[in-house]
Amino acid sequence: MRPLRIALLGFGNVGRRFASLLPADYGRVLRAAGARPRITGISTARHGSAIQSRGLDPARCLALVRAGRTLDALHHGPPVASAADFIRRVPADVLVELTPLDPRRGEPATSHVRLALRRGLHVVTANKGPVAFAWRPLQTLAARRRRLFLHEGVVMDGTPLFNMARRCLPGITIRSFRGTLNSTTSHILGRMEQGRSASEALREAQAAGIAEADPSLDLEGWDAAVKGCALANALMGASVRPSQVRRRGIGGITARDVRAATAAGSRLRLVVRGRRSGRTVRIAVGPERVPLGDPLSGPGADAALVLETDLMGEIGLVERGGDVDQTAYAVLSDLVAVAEAR
Amino acid sequence: MRPLRIALLGFGNVGRRFASLLPADYGRVLRAAGARPRITGISTARHGSAIQSRGLDPARCLALVRAGRTLDALHHGPPVASAADFIRRVPADVLVELTPLDPRRGEPATSHVRLALRRGLHVVTANKGPVAFAWRPLQTLAARRRRLFLHEGVVMDGTPLFNMARRCLPGITIRSFRGTLNSTTSHILGRMEQGRSASEALREAQAAGIAEADPSLDLEGWDAAVKGCALANALMGASVRPSQVRRRGIGGITARDVRAATAAGSRLRLVVRGRRSGRTVRIAVGPERVPLGDPLSGPGADAALVLETDLMGEIGLVERGGDVDQTAYAVLSDLVAVAEAR
Repeated sequence: MRPLRIALLGFGNVGRRFASLLPADYGRVLRAAGARPRITGISTARHGSAIQSRGLDPARCLALVRAGRTLDALHHGPPVASAADFIRRVPADVLVELTPLDPRRGEPATSHVRLALRRGLHVVTANKGPVAFAWRPLQTLAARRRRLFLHEGVVMDGTPLFNMARRCLPGITIRSFRGTLNSTTSHILGRMEQGRSASEALREAQAAGIAEADPSLDLEGWDAAVKGCALANALMGASVRPSQVRRRGIGGITARDVRAATAAGSRLRLVVRGRRSGRTVRIAVGPERVPLGDPLSGPGADAALVLETDLMGEIGLVERGGDVDQTAYAVLSDLVAVAEAR
Repeated sequence: MRPLRIALLGFGNVGRRFASLLPADYGRVLRAAGARPRITGISTARHGSAIQSRGLDPARCLALVRAGRTLDALHHGPPVASAADFIRRVPADVLVELTPLDPRRGEPATSHVRLALRRGLHVVTANKGPVAFAWRPLQTLAARRRRLFLHEGVVMDGTPLFNMARRCLPGITIRSFRGTLNSTTSHILGRMEQGRSASEALREAQAAGIAEADPSLDLEGWDAAVKGCALANALMGASVRPSQVRRRGIGGITARDVRAATAAGSRLRLVVRGRRSGRTVRIAVGPERVPLGDPLSGPGADAALVLETDLMGEIGLVERGGDVDQTAYAVLSDLVAVAEAR
């Protein structure tokens, strides 16, 4: 069994869940893939950073951060000056990139991934920015360094769509896709089906921690647009950017629109569509009536994606009730792929 | 590039579609996986057999069979006495088993697979019998001979469910599954939703070639039970047999039942369920009301499967409009796995 030295950049919900599962289930899965995992560094924005080449104790890191303290007491060596400094210095085989994202620019995640690949680390991320803004140059860089750049968690959490397309659909060309990929708008529209007004549904989602304090990125379709680009780039070989997406949000949707859709045997959802058009892929985001029975017509925040292929017709993937556990699993499954590739 | 010598046992719809696509798309996919494919033998029940170590011309074989003639004119060597004789003699790397199945016994496919593995061939099949009746002994035999026994086409055609579970869900335990896996009953119930009587819907399905002349295996839930066993054995490590399945068919379903389900916001479907219970898996088949919006609520003959997992919540897979192309693709994707494993 070979050590797998893991550096976590970002230690929010996903990183913490990953760290809490590593000593038990996740560790077992990685050891079965021939890797003895060790977290050799954690870098955070608000809780300091720690590097230990012999491995940090996940439980101690979690306890410190949950107590509102910093990780600095666990750090060995000169202080970590920045995320870039962390990436350059941490003794690791793979960087797990989980920092907060500005989805309008894809940063700072894209720069983190580039820096780590240049250093010769494998990279696993749940950040959609690098995939939506720079998939092709990052994959080219990864291939040149013989490293993997994996990102299963970017769309539909750990539901294996990128890995399925890469490993289980040989020779397939994806002609188009459509998906309900933004859980906040699906949740809000689902609550409106149950009689809430748009503003009530939003307030509830914010209180439950589902919608952000500033929900505009979700409501205006920006999150869905970024995910659409990630799919087009990684599954269809495109090089599209979120600014090129035709985008309408759910801002104008009223309780009456939702009722009318229901009466017509459908559900209103924010749908992202991508379709090959010559050498590029055109992507559009907007509210649509999805007929009940379609894979995209799941209740509440269910996420779904339908791929239209040349050799296999239409394949649908559905994720029911995704949450932080599912995103943490995406990181695990990508790390297993790294372990198997070494 | 290495030759991949393929022997086809059975040359019905799936085998013919496979052979017709091999010179173009499918050949390209296999060559991309490092294999130069060559059909070195075809054995049929009604159109004779042909073995040519240098490779048969698929177009000539298809023309002969479509003209109602036998393949014997293309055969080199002593006459082929039986399927077993073919398996023993054909100069091949992989046997593609596509013979008609008696799903009550899983034969003769199970014997064919066993014989081929014993001879040291890889085996690819779209026959559910060997997976439902003998998955574990056949996998054990394959492992001992360092050969692959692959069967993606057994459930939901080429939708990558066995391969996805094997390659993309590391460490996952499947706790239960539910699926609409029998297209004949889904089609009939879908037509009944549109106002047909049960007998009209059956006659239409028979006229369209969807239902068999003797539709009892589908209507009585036998096909779904066999597929449920295939899933339990291959995905959950069980050793259950179709005779152990609690099984109710759709024979007693009336137009009124279908209307009542529709009025309740659901669709009647023949659902197969499997659930881990101690060291075994309990499987039940029967008509159920599926709420619209559930992954299993697709219209017409759509097939769907929901896996309940320990680490990834529920994952749904949907196949829309499956037909012989999709099953032929299952064979191709398994052959790519064979090519990559060599």
